[in-house]
Amino acid sequence: MSRYFSSKYEKLTPYVPGEQPKDMKYIKLNTNESPFPPSEKAVKAAAEEALNLRLYPDPELTALSRSFASAYGVGERNVIFSNGSDDLLNFAFMAFCDNETGAAFPDITYGFYPVFAEFNNIDYKEIPLKDDFTIDIEDYKGLKRTIFIANPNAPTGIALAPEEIEKIIIANPDNIVVIDEAYVDFGAESCVPLTEKYDNLLVIGTFSKSRSMAGARLGYAIGNEELINDLNTIRFSTNPYNINRMTMAAGIGVLEDPEYTKNNCLTIIKNREYTVNELKKLGFTMTDSRANFVFARKPEVSGEKLYLELKKRGVLVRHFAKDRIDDYLRITIGTSDEMKSLVDAVRIILEEM
Amino acid sequence: MSRYFSSKYEKLTPYVPGEQPKDMKYIKLNTNESPFPPSEKAVKAAAEEALNLRLYPDPELTALSRSFASAYGVGERNVIFSNGSDDLLNFAFMAFCDNETGAAFPDITYGFYPVFAEFNNIDYKEIPLKDDFTIDIEDYKGLKRTIFIANPNAPTGIALAPEEIEKIIIANPDNIVVIDEAYVDFGAESCVPLTEKYDNLLVIGTFSKSRSMAGARLGYAIGNEELINDLNTIRFSTNPYNINRMTMAAGIGVLEDPEYTKNNCLTIIKNREYTVNELKKLGFTMTDSRANFVFARKPEVSGEKLYLELKKRGVLVRHFAKDRIDDYLRITIGTSDEMKSLVDAVRIILEEM
Repeated sequence: MSRYFSSKYEKLTPYVPGEQPKDMKYIKLNTNESPFPPSEKAVKAAAEEALNLRLYPDPELTALSRSFASAYGVGERNVIFSNGSDDLLNFAFMAFCDNETGAAFPDITYGFYPVFAEFNNIDYKEIPLKDDFTIDIEDYKGLKRTIFIANPNAPTGIALAPEEIEKIIIANPDNIVVIDEAYVDFGAESCVPLTEKYDNLLVIGTFSKSRSMAGARLGYAIGNEELINDLNTIRFSTNPYNINRMTMAAGIGVLEDPEYTKNNCLTIIKNREYTVNELKKLGFTMTDSRANFVFARKPEVSGEKLYLELKKRGVLVRHFAKDRIDDYLRITIGTSDEMKSLVDAVRIILEEM
Repeated sequence: MSRYFSSKYEKLTPYVPGEQPKDMKYIKLNTNESPFPPSEKAVKAAAEEALNLRLYPDPELTALSRSFASAYGVGERNVIFSNGSDDLLNFAFMAFCDNETGAAFPDITYGFYPVFAEFNNIDYKEIPLKDDFTIDIEDYKGLKRTIFIANPNAPTGIALAPEEIEKIIIANPDNIVVIDEAYVDFGAESCVPLTEKYDNLLVIGTFSKSRSMAGARLGYAIGNEELINDLNTIRFSTNPYNINRMTMAAGIGVLEDPEYTKNNCLTIIKNREYTVNELKKLGFTMTDSRANFVFARKPEVSGEKLYLELKKRGVLVRHFAKDRIDDYLRITIGTSDEMKSLVDAVRIILEEM
């Protein structure tokens, strides 16, 4: 830290993304990326748009908003895009939290939420998940805080039904409820239809997972027009040209190819079921994941040790050195070959123990 | 504004980017874009990288940092990249200003500086340029504020020599001096070499102008390793994957083609000289611009009227309805054909008045 750095950040601990190893080739099951390439329509559109880079992108994102609104059945003014959904989550912390209104989220969830809260100097309450890692919606009623819930939650993969979330929305009429649907396309149900009904619901999503565009950085938020305007006030006060031309083109391209996305999701779900069954046979217990990962542990085996042994064998998964979950591994669902390799590697490690 | 929006932003007026018209085809001389396409190496690299979008980008930006460091003669740890230089300017306001340390910048400069200051709730002082729109460096000595100077300045195009800026740096040893070099490649001298000598200098730049990559969003900051670490603390607390894969590839591609950039800059300089001479013949006065635009007015002719008449004739330039400069037009330098069309259109308008 330099002597010029504002003291307001002196206690800040930045987020640590999953490893992006450069030492060798891994079966990479650690950052919930898609094992499939992006839609050919996305690749082609992005490549063609590279010829137009001399011009700024459209700050209104008109063409992308139109495609997206049509695909999601929402109005063009009910959506905002940003450079990855992290960026929009940060906007939501800035827009809807302050000295008077704190934040609340589960104690076990996406690790960036407390970082956003601390970065923006916002008081936050971490609400413990139940012992089975489910959310007790009673804990979220009348909180008088802006609520952030990842649904499905990460790293557990457990999803709430929209009817349950609706109860939280109704019980907090004076506060925003942010539902982070990064993983919704792998078997959970979206809360987007509820945005028409409630002016205090913001649904955030990403093109990184089901649409294979993690490398393009494209996140979105859907909500009441007034909420979207609030977020646009932040966008136009910080970075109006936040989506580059190629990503915008790729986003439109992938939206034109819904069958491709759907089939990839079905394959991931099938591979997840395979992985769950095989790991069960090896004595693992798992949450009921509706995401493109499983959250698994084997009683009496250290999660950290298993992570390290897998890494030695060229399989990278995610381990969180965090209370309550440090015996678990979060394993991204890849291709069927990758999942077979993972299961084989786990079997060998357990045999050698 | 929704009733949920934090009151801390209620007085905020977002930045208004230059028009990106969709009604007809204009000769577009209003947002200081390059008239030349990006380097073929950049286009090819970006297009190829579109195939890898399923994976997150490298948050350490290792390959880009290496290319950049080699091109600029700085260390790999002396540079940070972000999603356009606006993003990094905002980071600098966050990192190096707060309740105790305000900001200072000229009264006529890039219109985003006061927006960043207001967004971050930072007290700022606008220091009047002299009557000829030059900066009096005496005004910037011992300010006890973080200083932001665009060099060349916008929209005047007037540049300070690094020796003059060095005097400001020396006279503010306890404060950061940020030099915004968005337009430096069109005939001004860079302060990058001074970053080795002073730990309170941050130089910010962009790939949008001389490198024809406005649509890709790639900005950089160069400085002492500690300052770069401070900015990375902000980056990793808000958006670690801030540069998408295609932009990273395009950035490396264009850095491999320095002759292309240099030749484009020489052409712009030549076309600027042509434009200055022709407008002088038509009775205009201009600042001594070292940027890819001229800042011109014709005594007794309304800047707004001229802007509107040009727009009617299909030539888009930028007019600022702002005290001291509302009789000026900022005219981006395009191809020689575009500048001939601009001069012809101005001539006809003046004849018809």
